[in-house]
Amino acid sequence: MTDAPMTQRSMNGARALIRTLVDSGVDVCFSNPGTSEMHFVAALDDVAEMRAVLALFEGVVTGAADGYARMTDRPAATLLHLGPGLGNGIANLHNARRARVPVVNIVGDQATHHHNFDAPLTSDIDTLARNVSGWLRTSTSPGGVAADAADAVAAALTPPGHVATLVLPADVSWGEGAAPAAPRPTPKPSPVPTDIIDAVAKVLRSGEPTALLLGGRAVREAGLVAASQIANACDAKLLAETFPTRLERGAGRPAVSRLSYLAEFTVAQLAGLRHLVIVDSKAPVSFFAYPDKPSYLVPDDCEVHMLCAPGDDTTDALNQLVDAVGAADTAPTPQPALRPDRPTGPVNGETVAAALGAVLPEAAIVVDESQTLGIWASGATAGAPRHDWLTLTGGSIGFGLPAATGAAVACPDRPVICLEADGSAMYTIQALWTQAHEGLDVTTIILNNRSYAILNMELARVGAADPGPKALSMLDLSVPPIDFVAIARGLGVPAVRPESAEAFTVALERAIAEPGPHLIEAVI
Amino acid sequence: MTDAPMTQRSMNGARALIRTLVDSGVDVCFSNPGTSEMHFVAALDDVAEMRAVLALFEGVVTGAADGYARMTDRPAATLLHLGPGLGNGIANLHNARRARVPVVNIVGDQATHHHNFDAPLTSDIDTLARNVSGWLRTSTSPGGVAADAADAVAAALTPPGHVATLVLPADVSWGEGAAPAAPRPTPKPSPVPTDIIDAVAKVLRSGEPTALLLGGRAVREAGLVAASQIANACDAKLLAETFPTRLERGAGRPAVSRLSYLAEFTVAQLAGLRHLVIVDSKAPVSFFAYPDKPSYLVPDDCEVHMLCAPGDDTTDALNQLVDAVGAADTAPTPQPALRPDRPTGPVNGETVAAALGAVLPEAAIVVDESQTLGIWASGATAGAPRHDWLTLTGGSIGFGLPAATGAAVACPDRPVICLEADGSAMYTIQALWTQAHEGLDVTTIILNNRSYAILNMELARVGAADPGPKALSMLDLSVPPIDFVAIARGLGVPAVRPESAEAFTVALERAIAEPGPHLIEAVI
Repeated sequence: MTDAPMTQRSMNGARALIRTLVDSGVDVCFSNPGTSEMHFVAALDDVAEMRAVLALFEGVVTGAADGYARMTDRPAATLLHLGPGLGNGIANLHNARRARVPVVNIVGDQATHHHNFDAPLTSDIDTLARNVSGWLRTSTSPGGVAADAADAVAAALTPPGHVATLVLPADVSWGEGAAPAAPRPTPKPSPVPTDIIDAVAKVLRSGEPTALLLGGRAVREAGLVAASQIANACDAKLLAETFPTRLERGAGRPAVSRLSYLAEFTVAQLAGLRHLVIVDSKAPVSFFAYPDKPSYLVPDDCEVHMLCAPGDDTTDALNQLVDAVGAADTAPTPQPALRPDRPTGPVNGETVAAALGAVLPEAAIVVDESQTLGIWASGATAGAPRHDWLTLTGGSIGFGLPAATGAAVACPDRPVICLEADGSAMYTIQALWTQAHEGLDVTTIILNNRSYAILNMELARVGAADPGPKALSMLDLSVPPIDFVAIARGLGVPAVRPESAEAFTVALERAIAEPGPHLIEAVI
Repeated sequence: MTDAPMTQRSMNGARALIRTLVDSGVDVCFSNPGTSEMHFVAALDDVAEMRAVLALFEGVVTGAADGYARMTDRPAATLLHLGPGLGNGIANLHNARRARVPVVNIVGDQATHHHNFDAPLTSDIDTLARNVSGWLRTSTSPGGVAADAADAVAAALTPPGHVATLVLPADVSWGEGAAPAAPRPTPKPSPVPTDIIDAVAKVLRSGEPTALLLGGRAVREAGLVAASQIANACDAKLLAETFPTRLERGAGRPAVSRLSYLAEFTVAQLAGLRHLVIVDSKAPVSFFAYPDKPSYLVPDDCEVHMLCAPGDDTTDALNQLVDAVGAADTAPTPQPALRPDRPTGPVNGETVAAALGAVLPEAAIVVDESQTLGIWASGATAGAPRHDWLTLTGGSIGFGLPAATGAAVACPDRPVICLEADGSAMYTIQALWTQAHEGLDVTTIILNNRSYAILNMELARVGAADPGPKALSMLDLSVPPIDFVAIARGLGVPAVRPESAEAFTVALERAIAEPGPHLIEAVI
């Protein structure tokens, strides 16, 4: 049923809100509702175009909205229940904020007249939301909620992309007298002034050692092509930020080296540079601080130049720069097609990566939360057919399974592969149920080394040498061993645990070929 | 190894912090650490008395700290990783705040000198923490962190109990030059002035219809005995708040009627009263607002009298009131011993409750997050041997499995039984792994009706009649059905799914008798 025959009648706030979201281009809502959201839930049936996707935990809701936005450049809506529901969604909203993607984050609240009674579920939602939100508003009346929704969508889409949080009191949803609002104009990215283009062109033509550091929209194909032309014409180096939001890569696309997570290696990657040109990113800093090690990783004698900041028109700036450095006729360097052989022998990080490289299908979306075990995956897939690579932008683990869920909702015709570490998987394992519920084409590979292996590494890096048994026990997930095959089946996802690299490769091919979700556990 | 031979040497902040916690009576730390907490983790081995309990998700950490505090009246420490880790812990900290229990909530942060670099995991922790914290401080130096820890424990223990959040930058942990701090004196509850006692006594002796509304410490045995004496002497009614933190009940203890979750029923429970005496609670309000229904549930012509607020010396006030109304020689009314027969027939909410009532052992701790299916459980266990009943004080679901975990750590000699609804279980299912890892004696009963049944009820109550298929799908957990037996086994917990009430009762007896965790799925 649609609104067409109903527009003359009175409408409650929830219905006007959902109609406005759809009219503004937001037609998916990842949901984990409670009592205060029941009128929103009831109104879903009044707006046929809105798809509601249920999740069993709010971190799945917000991570799915992130993955969806990365693949569509449009926001999904969330639906969360009061402060605690938002709390559970904070970690993946943090990642979405760092990914600079649009999200319309809807948080139900107590009715406005009920708030002062301090009922058990009442809390200060604004305070929580401010932490992760680029825009925050509490709707105060049914008559105003549709305009608030249109503003929220526009705020979310303001380049580069923001988490726009709309707090929705229950009586604003259930109150009558609302009407849909017109969509706001879509905000445009800021053009980069010519003098900046010219200044950067001058640096690039100086002959001094220079690198372009690409992030945000610059690591999509159009940006990479332009950057590769510039690098080739000016003998510059191409680098990408450590954790890109969505890196378009594979055979035929220009390749780019990501900065290392390990500050020591980043320092090596930047050594000898006299100029670093930032393109939709920021100057590299260490992920964490370590005793007696620098936080800021750019060499002292390296000058940083800002070509474009997040929110600027990155692709246009790179295209202008192509012309300014005279690279219009310079060819970019495409990555050659090259797959590793199908692996043999034991299942380990290297053979899993080789299997992925050997069978990765065209147009795949890879969500990478593989942590220490993923170090081989990037190399093994570099020459595979074109695909997108989504990474843990904010460092808050529990991102992979939800983001894969959202990416699969966004792109039903593309295979999604989630490279997931065991420790990280357990933060948002509930996502598997939504994948099964929606029949999403996601293949989850659990790289199970039965430990927080990255913390074993970090324990040494922070200088905590010679750890004792209690310290080590905080990083050990082996007692009891987690059986991801059993958990996946319990959540309705077919799962296997291949015992050889050959069997793993066959299982991966089969999982990708069959519709619907699958999980493959690689015990390493 | 202990600190004894080391006290003359320099000590880092983490070690001084942990030593101070132990000296202040905090000797359990529920943990989910990350890189910024590695020095804290390393220092665990330097302080033998500190027990560290690893959880796979932060909601388990904070819910376990809540359950632990409810059973010991002492705080556990938490260990959380930065803003996103705190975010994941917010929902159960909300419940702990509403339970008014002590928690020392330790949140690691970036090193102080690293904060301004805005690395990916950096966020505004204070803003998040303020929402749930009665006390909040960021430690700024290794020399000050031990005093901060001692202050945090004192703040947590300030009656009635608070979440005290200590933000711990990584360099404060790793920096040298720290020393343990002396424990602070334990804060005492406030005595209730005699004129208040006398005024309430006068009300009770007035002969007008009066009820005592008990909460907090008043629903422990000593408070219930005094309240029962008063009620018997003055012909007053005994009521308890809807969601008590820890209700001591069972055969031999005075029984008390809890106010209903449903406001309509609460109104009926309070109808006809001319006086309501609040004892460590607050005047009842509706859990949620509903269109055209009141939020404040006390009848218009009923006068509210505050005997004691949370933080007052509740038991002493009740004992004084016993004397003031001349009830010293009045006997309390003990609940008679009475168990239901062992149930027969199908597994359903009623037979599960009867099985629990039939076999509940002496001194059990029941953690109740059974939602709609739990309505029979309270009645069926009323006359069972003495036990404690822990409820969802803040309404934020995902409380049960973590709180049961913490209660079992607190009371290793007492059986813990967790009544858990399917929807609620899925928010913090990771707790099962910690139960297996620690060999905790917890029996989880999953009441699986394959829906958010409470929301079906709420959908009608908020006036969203005639819901459409999309609305109903938001409340339906049946596709795919969740197999809790498989999930539990995947997390190392033995599990069964009995098909009859007889088999359920046998399985429950066996689970309680055998050491270690068990899960019993009741598909209803």
